[in-house]
Amino acid sequence: MHGIIATWRMAKEGIEQSDKMLKEGKTAAQAIEVAIKAVEDFPYYKSVGYGGLPNEEQVVELDAGYMDGDILSVGAICAIQDFANPISIAKKLSEEKVNNVLVAEGAAKYAREYHFEEKEMLTDRARAFYRKKKKELAAQDELRPYDGHDTVGMVCVDNNGSVTAGTSTSGLFMKRSGRIGDSPLVGSGFYADSEVGGATATGLGEDLMKGCISYEIVRLMKEGLTPQEACEKAVNDLDAKLIAKRGKAGDLSVVAMNNKGEFGCATNIEGFSFSVATENLEPIVYLVTRKEDGHCEFEEASQEWLDNYMKTRMAPVEE
Amino acid sequence: MHGIIATWRMAKEGIEQSDKMLKEGKTAAQAIEVAIKAVEDFPYYKSVGYGGLPNEEQVVELDAGYMDGDILSVGAICAIQDFANPISIAKKLSEEKVNNVLVAEGAAKYAREYHFEEKEMLTDRARAFYRKKKKELAAQDELRPYDGHDTVGMVCVDNNGSVTAGTSTSGLFMKRSGRIGDSPLVGSGFYADSEVGGATATGLGEDLMKGCISYEIVRLMKEGLTPQEACEKAVNDLDAKLIAKRGKAGDLSVVAMNNKGEFGCATNIEGFSFSVATENLEPIVYLVTRKEDGHCEFEEASQEWLDNYMKTRMAPVEE
Repeated sequence: MHGIIATWRMAKEGIEQSDKMLKEGKTAAQAIEVAIKAVEDFPYYKSVGYGGLPNEEQVVELDAGYMDGDILSVGAICAIQDFANPISIAKKLSEEKVNNVLVAEGAAKYAREYHFEEKEMLTDRARAFYRKKKKELAAQDELRPYDGHDTVGMVCVDNNGSVTAGTSTSGLFMKRSGRIGDSPLVGSGFYADSEVGGATATGLGEDLMKGCISYEIVRLMKEGLTPQEACEKAVNDLDAKLIAKRGKAGDLSVVAMNNKGEFGCATNIEGFSFSVATENLEPIVYLVTRKEDGHCEFEEASQEWLDNYMKTRMAPVEE
Repeated sequence: MHGIIATWRMAKEGIEQSDKMLKEGKTAAQAIEVAIKAVEDFPYYKSVGYGGLPNEEQVVELDAGYMDGDILSVGAICAIQDFANPISIAKKLSEEKVNNVLVAEGAAKYAREYHFEEKEMLTDRARAFYRKKKKELAAQDELRPYDGHDTVGMVCVDNNGSVTAGTSTSGLFMKRSGRIGDSPLVGSGFYADSEVGGATATGLGEDLMKGCISYEIVRLMKEGLTPQEACEKAVNDLDAKLIAKRGKAGDLSVVAMNNKGEFGCATNIEGFSFSVATENLEPIVYLVTRKEDGHCEFEEASQEWLDNYMKTRMAPVEE
């Protein structure tokens, strides 16, 4: 059984490619990289790769993480600038004996050494969003980061039962220079163990990391919970704990897949979507609804929703 | 009940100061910062703060993490250069609403903005160690990082039952530029939850992070294990898993304290030591021995051991 699951609608085209690869017998390591690169390369997604929105100094800083669940190898880069495919650099780093997590200019040096594609990642469209936001913020007291922080995170299982997990993000719009969230942090943004499965998160990184949420989901699956039960328990427990201790919880959304290709999701927000494909399920986008009892249900996105999604993503920026 | 526990002998003088503060009713947040700063400031410790050994480009890059277990706030800095007290910057970052984890120059900008003390952290002694190592490495095929990576990690409990955790390190000697280990990663290098306790780790960061080991220890204590049982289970499980999947495990050493001041330790190496003080225990250094059955025992370091420790730390560098 093979499968791939990813946070958000934006992953759909990527997982279509990966689904074909998995059917052809390609590995989870190969398939997840292709799927995440597709999201990184698409210029209209504002929170991943090319076209990602910049930090408060109008610089695009990118984070990515990768884990090979067969041998628990981890690679990650934090706050790298002007490389086309952060996920590929993170994946390559996972193959190093040590020095698996590199930040900023050190990460860039490594990427240049291995001839990863350099690319100016700040687009004219992202510049327009930045100008617009600066104007809006000028009218406010405080510089507050944009609350859209749609990391792409994926978990992939191949026919050999190998599980991989990966993330890629440009992080919070208007973040401070050098800020990283959960995405490049193993256990928080992503985790994979081929004996069990994998999980990945999106939302407010500063809150997701307080619960090592991806590690916790995989651990719960290992204890015997289904992916859906594990996702819900991890999100609801962390959400409740943050509210009890801090008065509020940031956005927490997760997806998970076990090594049999069974999957689950959970969120504490409205509007979370995810993309998934398995041996028995053609690539599909689901919309997630959290019910009052904390359980999450998902249903296929309508054609109208899908059309509207792409229309709003590609609409001109009104400054 | 108050207490403070720390990885390695090097923390002894720091926890003596903190022990007094805790007895006077100071908070765990105050006491842990003072203790870690004492280690950062001492020029003869080669892996923390001033005097820490540089990366392969002869630059000292420092990492630190801090967690307030009352409200789960986290702050961390990664690969910062030339600030005297990384722990204080991490602690300050934990008070921010977002942007709690900053890397490299972005972290430095923040630190300058808040007027943290700038200091050239590369000492003549560290330069001598670097020259010596370069000569040794010239005779070898491959640049291999030094395997001494003695992060200082601490957990502190105050009379109000507040638990804090913190770390500070210069990381692997001869690491790549921008490399970070587990120390600034919440859940891997450190974790605190005042409802339970805290834990912190030292060793090969690249392996410690594969098991989110500090989060796991706190979770096990929450399940009802004693700090000693939780430390042993977390280290032994991760050690066994790494050996099964990768053929070997890097150095893994941990200490933990619960909110009643009970403490524990575990390691998979020879030569691990830790420092601890509680309401009922004067500041003391223990040496840890791992037995064949995986249990860890600890006994007070002899005066001879302590004298020899400081003598070797302060001996001239033979080039």
